[in-house]
Amino acid sequence: MSSTNNDFIRWIENGHCASVPGFSMNGVACDIRGTDASRLDIGILFSPTPCSAAGVFTRNRMAAAPVAWCRQLLAQSSAFHAIVVNSGNANACTGADGKSDTQQMAQQVATELNCPESSVFVASTGRIGRRLPMTKIQRGIRAAAAAIESTPCAANNLADAILTSDTRRKQCAVEITTPDGPVRIAGIAKGAGMIEPNMATMLAFIVTDAKISNAYLQELLQAAVKPTFNAITVDGDESTNDSVIVMANGASGIEVQANSALVTLFAEALQQVCFDLARKIVGDGEKISKVVTVRIENAASAQDAEMAARAVANSLLVKSSWYGNDPNWGRVLDAVGYSGAAVSEDSVQLWYATEPDAKRVPAFEHGKVHEDQIPTWKSIVREKEFCIIVSLGQGSHTAQLWSTDLTEGYVNFNKSE
Amino acid sequence: MSSTNNDFIRWIENGHCASVPGFSMNGVACDIRGTDASRLDIGILFSPTPCSAAGVFTRNRMAAAPVAWCRQLLAQSSAFHAIVVNSGNANACTGADGKSDTQQMAQQVATELNCPESSVFVASTGRIGRRLPMTKIQRGIRAAAAAIESTPCAANNLADAILTSDTRRKQCAVEITTPDGPVRIAGIAKGAGMIEPNMATMLAFIVTDAKISNAYLQELLQAAVKPTFNAITVDGDESTNDSVIVMANGASGIEVQANSALVTLFAEALQQVCFDLARKIVGDGEKISKVVTVRIENAASAQDAEMAARAVANSLLVKSSWYGNDPNWGRVLDAVGYSGAAVSEDSVQLWYATEPDAKRVPAFEHGKVHEDQIPTWKSIVREKEFCIIVSLGQGSHTAQLWSTDLTEGYVNFNKSE
Repeated sequence: MSSTNNDFIRWIENGHCASVPGFSMNGVACDIRGTDASRLDIGILFSPTPCSAAGVFTRNRMAAAPVAWCRQLLAQSSAFHAIVVNSGNANACTGADGKSDTQQMAQQVATELNCPESSVFVASTGRIGRRLPMTKIQRGIRAAAAAIESTPCAANNLADAILTSDTRRKQCAVEITTPDGPVRIAGIAKGAGMIEPNMATMLAFIVTDAKISNAYLQELLQAAVKPTFNAITVDGDESTNDSVIVMANGASGIEVQANSALVTLFAEALQQVCFDLARKIVGDGEKISKVVTVRIENAASAQDAEMAARAVANSLLVKSSWYGNDPNWGRVLDAVGYSGAAVSEDSVQLWYATEPDAKRVPAFEHGKVHEDQIPTWKSIVREKEFCIIVSLGQGSHTAQLWSTDLTEGYVNFNKSE
Repeated sequence: MSSTNNDFIRWIENGHCASVPGFSMNGVACDIRGTDASRLDIGILFSPTPCSAAGVFTRNRMAAAPVAWCRQLLAQSSAFHAIVVNSGNANACTGADGKSDTQQMAQQVATELNCPESSVFVASTGRIGRRLPMTKIQRGIRAAAAAIESTPCAANNLADAILTSDTRRKQCAVEITTPDGPVRIAGIAKGAGMIEPNMATMLAFIVTDAKISNAYLQELLQAAVKPTFNAITVDGDESTNDSVIVMANGASGIEVQANSALVTLFAEALQQVCFDLARKIVGDGEKISKVVTVRIENAASAQDAEMAARAVANSLLVKSSWYGNDPNWGRVLDAVGYSGAAVSEDSVQLWYATEPDAKRVPAFEHGKVHEDQIPTWKSIVREKEFCIIVSLGQGSHTAQLWSTDLTEGYVNFNKSE
């Protein structure tokens, strides 16, 4: 778990969605994959009190039916009660059938939990292009709704039900201290392939007991997603189903209003939660062995910084060399060179560091290689986590991404589904 | 070797650069890598007669010293005599030293072969960021110049000297029949990693005995490179050293002039040579097991078609599934969706075919999966070569790329150098 530098924000140890008062949740098994009847694969997160909500979704033009449903909900509804989510099937590229299946899921949850259909978000993750097994799904929703009644704080079950190729559940919770009492924010997420800036195959659901308007929550969520969920990449593949949804039930009685003193704290805490979940996603990337921070500095524009960071973070040759503990800075500069960002061999500088704030070991500066530093780089890139910093020497813009190495295991794992 | 459909253009069997009268060439070993003193690693292509010439180079902003040299030569000189090329060291990211080493190579060739320094192209390929071993290079150039005098038609030696991770030499030659006698075009090339549209780590040298102006040769070369060398991708990594250089010595006495009848034939033959070499490069990609043609049709713009083709051709998930013989069309549509090209689930269609002109087997059309065709796709993607066609249903633009699968062998091969 990341540390927080703010005395008013503290991590709740082993925190999860049930750390936030007023939300109930559970997950059950309904054998969506058809291969493992005991694997949890459908879950519901529920608030009897109407919530405000916000969402950020994939920009993929093949966005799945549940993504379209959630976008429509946020545009048309003002009060929200539930999220229903399944793993094992993405309900993407499923045409009109997929849309109707999504609506049916929302409808059934609404009936079971006695709330409007238009207050129920739907999320799906898994293989693209197959119809949902709706008989199983119906059975699953019925069981999940019953489980919520009997065991309303089964946060781990929900966190497990959303996983696909992840090797572990991802969740966290923070508490903000305010003069009027505590405010909590908690979240769960899943990775682990198709992870790329602009979110890619990831789901994250965040809950808070703050009181906050829909519009303001949307604004704060967007700001929090940019340097966190949008700054991780495993394989450069953006998915059809990425969704980050946040629901606020106001149970703390404490309102987050524009320009209030609480806003800065709440925004920071929300970003911390997103950061922690994003970091857990990239650290659990499919068959990775390393997490590498790619930092671009002194770019001519924000777009240049982003393009250069992305080119490095997604280069097959660069990622392969990380896997091999090879400080192949030449491949890094090659990627920077073809990224489209303004740069020249004379202006560019490249360093290795054990972490972004640690001492920088120079590798290449203004056309000269620091040959004497080779043993030091070699020892840095042997670490499980390290950092590459490239200054383009063109301006003052910065971008930072978390990437992973490319392993033989990734290729073997993804060669068939 | 590809077939030509034009009766006036025929492939010369086992053709190579020496199939074109008036050029001499050879390659020798000077142990640039320091690991194999017998491996050919430096070569010279020479014409005693002054030639016209043209070139197309990497767009990487970290372009290597020899690329900068060749660009300058084409801008400033009008007559050309030689190309000197080394493998094992890219002379990229080598600053002022690298520039001076490149010039020294041209200078030495000029002295040895008695031609102006400003008529000698230089090309290098290999690891980035290390200075050329100039003592070895000097010895190599001396030996290569001597070898040309004694054995001027050693085309295979030159073709071998430029290889890096290639597993085989790449060369071809065609003959154009004209009323005034034959005109020949021949070429050699090397791959095999960092292969991506906009050329990437590839070198190709083409010679012809046609008579043609510098400006017109440049125009025809650019047209020929676009659908050939710029349409192949192995790993999406563009290199610092890509160069395609063509030299025309006029030895046939036949002139290719704008608007003459010969132009169409010559342009087609030049493109055939580029196509054959490009096809050999992609077919010899690092540790690949398949070559896949990705064809995008009915895009709203040429740029959309290109973006969509590139997203599919470079997707790690798509490439991994090809390796696994998995017809994972969902990942293909996912890549099309995030490419930035205009498309929708309702408008898109996807087919598999054994080759671009063969019968198309539908997989997904307007929101519907052709489940009944699954056995047929599966058998197609088990082939060593196949084709994926995606219609975006938005307009009339087309793009086509040749890509390769991503194998565990690639990752293992590239994890260190």
